[in-house]
Amino acid sequence: MAGDSTLLAAVSLLSACQQIYFALHVGRARLKYKITPPAVTGSLEFERIFRAHQNSLEFYSVFIITLWMAGWYFNQVFAACLGLVYVYARHKYFWGYAETTDGRITGFKLSLGILALLIVIAVLGLASRFLDEYLDLHVAKKLRHPF
Amino acid sequence: MAGDSTLLAAVSLLSACQQIYFALHVGRARLKYKITPPAVTGSLEFERIFRAHQNSLEFYSVFIITLWMAGWYFNQVFAACLGLVYVYARHKYFWGYAETTDGRITGFKLSLGILALLIVIAVLGLASRFLDEYLDLHVAKKLRHPF
Amino acid sequence: MAGDSTLLAAVSLLSACQQIYFALHVGRARLKYKITPPAVTGSLEFERIFRAHQNSLEFYSVFIITLWMAGWYFNQVFAACLGLVYVYARHKYFWGYAETTDGRITGFKLSLGILALLIVIAVLGLASRFLDEYLDLHVAKKLRHPF
Repeated sequence: MAGDSTLLAAVSLLSACQQIYFALHVGRARLKYKITPPAVTGSLEFERIFRAHQNSLEFYSVFIITLWMAGWYFNQVFAACLGLVYVYARHKYFWGYAETTDGRITGFKLSLGILALLIVIAVLGLASRFLDEYLDLHVAKKLRHPF
Repeated sequence: MAGDSTLLAAVSLLSACQQIYFALHVGRARLKYKITPPAVTGSLEFERIFRAHQNSLEFYSVFIITLWMAGWYFNQVFAACLGLVYVYARHKYFWGYAETTDGRITGFKLSLGILALLIVIAVLGLASRFLDEYLDLHVAKKLRHPF
Repeated sequence: MAGDSTLLAAVSLLSACQQIYFALHVGRARLKYKITPPAVTGSLEFERIFRAHQNSLEFYSVFIITLWMAGWYFNQVFAACLGLVYVYARHKYFWGYAETTDGRITGFKLSLGILALLIVIAVLGLASRFLDEYLDLHVAKKLRHPF
């Protein structure tokens, strides 16, 4: 199992490192803007960085699930490539948001688009597997060899 | 591996879509109650919707882990059915909380009950696997064929 | 697949129970310090407990991913042991933070160290698998039998 998921594992580890990096940057911003824990408000600059991190976390579990489902049931290489674009979109979102509130929009829209794409291909892959397993309709095979 | 987890995958994808739906609803509530990012306070209505989303996220990773462990080590169909009830409980919780603070209670209690059940069956399944693997006690088999 | 992941599954379930325990403790702190939902501020004691829970959640998905990747691609027993230390570090962090703001530091540093270690061994295991699979270099084998 672990054998044919190496690309998914690599993208997951990369994105995990990105989340840790965001978290450490929030810690640095605490020092810079003098926001003593447990406070999370008090400086607009800090609040933007804090929310950028929180928003990335809000979508993180969803990203990991859709990445693996798309990789397992549709195509690993395609899902891993979309995963890389998602990591880039989150990078753009985080640093855009850290600068200005509107700076978050491009990265956010890109990351949502990637998530939507991952969900669509995961659902397609899963639906085809269901038809194979429970209804014995080998849709994918028949499409390839119709006669 | 991916073959005998299709139901778990389907429930996971459904719950991921639910989380995205909650997140988008928080975005709409931002516009409706005029809460400009990065602020997350300022209107009680918005705060309730925001906290409803946050609370769903707080339990989301835990739900996914217990769902898959219960499905892998106990029974996939049973775990997937509990997962569907959990998604319904979170739906009830979110919309109840969006209306009134007390409206969250029914859905929350139901979701906690489902989580507890998933944990219990995952622990049972895992314990039986441990006994099989490390102590060579085939408990489940012996219960079925005691003589 | 599920067969050789029993230790990872056990540690994941334990950590999931810990997260639920933290969440329930935040609920109890709400009653004790009279913080009515959806508010999350108003008492420094409550805010510390709330942030301790939030921070544990912020790192939870990352922990689960690095735990499983380290277990699948490097060594399950070693990863599971590190996972247990992480659960202990988070326990120390949570109760330290609940008492004083500085009380969080020891547990937090320990938990970050464990995460770093999990990432390092996951990357090592994954790199070795990549070399085997895509470049046909059986590094691990050659190190064991160089002639």
